[in-house]
Amino acid sequence: CSVTEKLHNGSPPNIIIMLMDDMGWGDLGVFGHPAKETPNLDAMAAQGMLLTNFYTANPLCSPSRAALLTGRLPVRNGFYTTNGHARNAYTPQEIVGGISKDEILLPAMLKKNGYVSKIVGKWHLGHRPAYLPLENGFDEWFGAPNCHFGPYNSSITPNIPVYNNSEMLGRYYEEFPINVKTGESNLTQIFLKEGLEFIHRQTKAQQPFFLYWAPDATHTPLYASRSFLGKSQRGRYGDAVMELDYSVGQILSSLQSLGIEKNTFVFFTSDNGAALTSRTNGGSNGPFLCGKETTFEGGMREPAIAWWPGNIKEGTVSQQLANVMDLFSTCLSLAGISAPDDRVLDGLDLTPVLLNLSHSLENRPIFYYRGNEMMAVRVGQFKAHYWTWTNSMEEFKQGVNFCAGQDVPGVTTHNQTEYTLQPIIFHLGRDPGEKFPLSVLTKEYLDALRSVSAVVEYHEKTLVPGVPQLNMCDQAVMNWAPAGCEKLGKCLDAPKSKPWKCSWPH
Amino acid sequence: CSVTEKLHNGSPPNIIIMLMDDMGWGDLGVFGHPAKETPNLDAMAAQGMLLTNFYTANPLCSPSRAALLTGRLPVRNGFYTTNGHARNAYTPQEIVGGISKDEILLPAMLKKNGYVSKIVGKWHLGHRPAYLPLENGFDEWFGAPNCHFGPYNSSITPNIPVYNNSEMLGRYYEEFPINVKTGESNLTQIFLKEGLEFIHRQTKAQQPFFLYWAPDATHTPLYASRSFLGKSQRGRYGDAVMELDYSVGQILSSLQSLGIEKNTFVFFTSDNGAALTSRTNGGSNGPFLCGKETTFEGGMREPAIAWWPGNIKEGTVSQQLANVMDLFSTCLSLAGISAPDDRVLDGLDLTPVLLNLSHSLENRPIFYYRGNEMMAVRVGQFKAHYWTWTNSMEEFKQGVNFCAGQDVPGVTTHNQTEYTLQPIIFHLGRDPGEKFPLSVLTKEYLDALRSVSAVVEYHEKTLVPGVPQLNMCDQAVMNWAPAGCEKLGKCLDAPKSKPWKCSWPH
Ligand SMILES: [Ca+2]
Ligand SMILES: [Ca+2]
Repeated sequence: CSVTEKLHNGSPPNIIIMLMDDMGWGDLGVFGHPAKETPNLDAMAAQGMLLTNFYTANPLCSPSRAALLTGRLPVRNGFYTTNGHARNAYTPQEIVGGISKDEILLPAMLKKNGYVSKIVGKWHLGHRPAYLPLENGFDEWFGAPNCHFGPYNSSITPNIPVYNNSEMLGRYYEEFPINVKTGESNLTQIFLKEGLEFIHRQTKAQQPFFLYWAPDATHTPLYASRSFLGKSQRGRYGDAVMELDYSVGQILSSLQSLGIEKNTFVFFTSDNGAALTSRTNGGSNGPFLCGKETTFEGGMREPAIAWWPGNIKEGTVSQQLANVMDLFSTCLSLAGISAPDDRVLDGLDLTPVLLNLSHSLENRPIFYYRGNEMMAVRVGQFKAHYWTWTNSMEEFKQGVNFCAGQDVPGVTTHNQTEYTLQPIIFHLGRDPGEKFPLSVLTKEYLDALRSVSAVVEYHEKTLVPGVPQLNMCDQAVMNWAPAGCEKLGKCLDAPKSKPWKCSWPH
Repeated sequence: CSVTEKLHNGSPPNIIIMLMDDMGWGDLGVFGHPAKETPNLDAMAAQGMLLTNFYTANPLCSPSRAALLTGRLPVRNGFYTTNGHARNAYTPQEIVGGISKDEILLPAMLKKNGYVSKIVGKWHLGHRPAYLPLENGFDEWFGAPNCHFGPYNSSITPNIPVYNNSEMLGRYYEEFPINVKTGESNLTQIFLKEGLEFIHRQTKAQQPFFLYWAPDATHTPLYASRSFLGKSQRGRYGDAVMELDYSVGQILSSLQSLGIEKNTFVFFTSDNGAALTSRTNGGSNGPFLCGKETTFEGGMREPAIAWWPGNIKEGTVSQQLANVMDLFSTCLSLAGISAPDDRVLDGLDLTPVLLNLSHSLENRPIFYYRGNEMMAVRVGQFKAHYWTWTNSMEEFKQGVNFCAGQDVPGVTTHNQTEYTLQPIIFHLGRDPGEKFPLSVLTKEYLDALRSVSAVVEYHEKTLVPGVPQLNMCDQAVMNWAPAGCEKLGKCLDAPKSKPWKCSWPH
């Protein structure tokens, strides 16, 4: 009998995905941060499984989140741009597009087996009405459609709205204050309360739930509640981490006090690597190269912990190559729902690994995309870079540095450098920091190239790119008058539509 | 009553110091190595205390080891050179000097309370007869006086002898083979057996013991036993780490099976940071800057675990600033022996921290020396660099790179750059990787400078440098005819004495 059948002697488990924003692999004590200020996450790992080779699908918020919820690479689900080569695109509030109606999101799938789904926090898959969470399978939402940048002058740019379900409740920097100077905001506490309240309500109702808990305190502008401000050795970034760690602890202990911990699968990860360009206001990618925006390990390898007492063996470590798209397939498997068969899925069902039924799944590749370009591929311990770049020399000279303090000649390049005929190959076991390319004259290089090439050829031959959704921008589509603004007297006048091709500088 | 009195209601504990060679902070799973191939060390940390701010006294073998065994900075105990400014010196076999007769070593002190002491592995405090372990307080020795470099052509250079107590048993690459090509050598197994045999014998004799276990498999040329070769994801370096990790596990479990674990204090650390210039044959310094030979965090912050079931609380983490010289003072305290009062000691007694009697000791400074120069000082979270350099541009251009892949302008310099008038200051909490110097225009900089300056002034005013022992070299003093060579027919003819001032290139 299959894993899924074995699991479903009982009711399907509740599912909680905790997705951090710009938190790096090296920010957790259990992944080696010297400050060791994440006791709750470290305990979560000790009670569950640590995944050391877990990846995002793109080193930027929106495409990463789109991949998680669709189980598909951004180049398939449309969360990319063709305005330039190898450019990271996302959903600022001037974006016209959003998640395509052709995509099926995880909460819509889970509904087939009676799940009630809530997203708490950052959505980032399009802020125009048709793209919002409740139009895409979620039953509830508390949070915002875009990043919490601001405050803006509302005659030029509206502040980002905070929604409760399908109507706005207020705006950041207005009803939901963030003091950019002091870093004070109680948003993480609000997101925690919203998550806990949903868990309690669903438990009482005896309905299986999916909670997608996506707080954004570690994305600049950084914030923390008053009781966490100044508490970390690491400054404001560390304060935000400590409050998130505390919140994770609160959620896990509430599962235990409700007695549902053995029926709730919890997965903790982050959407992309730490933003090194934020300097001491950014996180740590531990021993890995560069960070957010790049396809080096620091941009795409993510902290990952799976927790499910009684099901996932405590204190285990898995070396399985895995990624955020696997969460889609895995959650469907846990819920006893067949995956959609009318589209290509990039995720694998990780339940055999999580439940320790097998040591590892097939030798699956990891693809590192930047926009429309496959920059690199990992097969086993080998990672082949076909294209390298960090950002333009122009931008770099202005102080934007995705690899602060790091410099690997020919690798951390400031122009788009093509290596498609002879990729740069690293052995990530011996060289997780991507500093010492294999010599192209070695047998090891040739053997690695042969196995990677086969994977790449198949991928490129079979890939059908989706229609790019992140090409057009327009001031008129910004959050001038979100649903519910009338009741609050918070509608703003939109300027005339004047669409342009968005510019994605890196 | 004092900690020491409290402890000595019973018999004084056995003491084991496990000192690795060139192993980096980031090589342990518990300190974040992605390969997670140190299950025994990770378990040791889970059963004991992890120290995240533990330092060596110098980023090179010999001075580090001299500091550990004397409790004094190398600039005091003579393990430095004045042949050049800010140069790292050690004890190759052409060195004339060694540990000064004026120094009192830990085993000589421990003898006062009946301890029997053994060193297993690398000594590195001088190989001429008067400098050997049994002349300096140890009762037993199995190992070698110098690094295991080789093999040499014996008409030009003798291979390094391996001693059993005061007589040689053979030489590396001869009776004690290391296959430089395959990396095979069973030396770690021999060192393990020697350690275990001593523990068993002392336990039977009911005599307190001090075991200084100093294997060198992670120093190039790397080696491992056949059963570990090829087992790591990390190549030969990882194989060596796995065998050392296995050996640590064997030692701890033998303490448990002998029933003496509650009466044996065990401390694990390394002598200096990972050698980044060895590229994929070197270890990892995790998130820290540069490595061996440098006074950046990667050169001097060390993995450290204290283990003493029933005494040290399990699963604890201490942020106490501590260093290898503290082991001298701490071991004396554990043994109930007063520290010598006729000399300056640089170590602190860590027992209040280890036994959780107080959260931290006084705000003690950490000094970062390179030869005769105090390069940097840490006070609290602030580290001030007064001098920076990695190595000369000449050497760097020949491929010797102590900071491979890393480049922090003005910090990772290739000439000796003086900042004594306006030190570069980092906040190691926010910036453990030493990438973002504080602006000299900030109040934070000025406050930090004030507190560091007071410490530095006092240190410089009161420091009385010892007579430098590492200035002279001579081919005639090499290991041509170690004690015991006659019996084995392994004596070689020494050339005529022709001393010269040793050249220390970095
Ligand atoms: Ca993000
Ligand atoms: Ca060493």
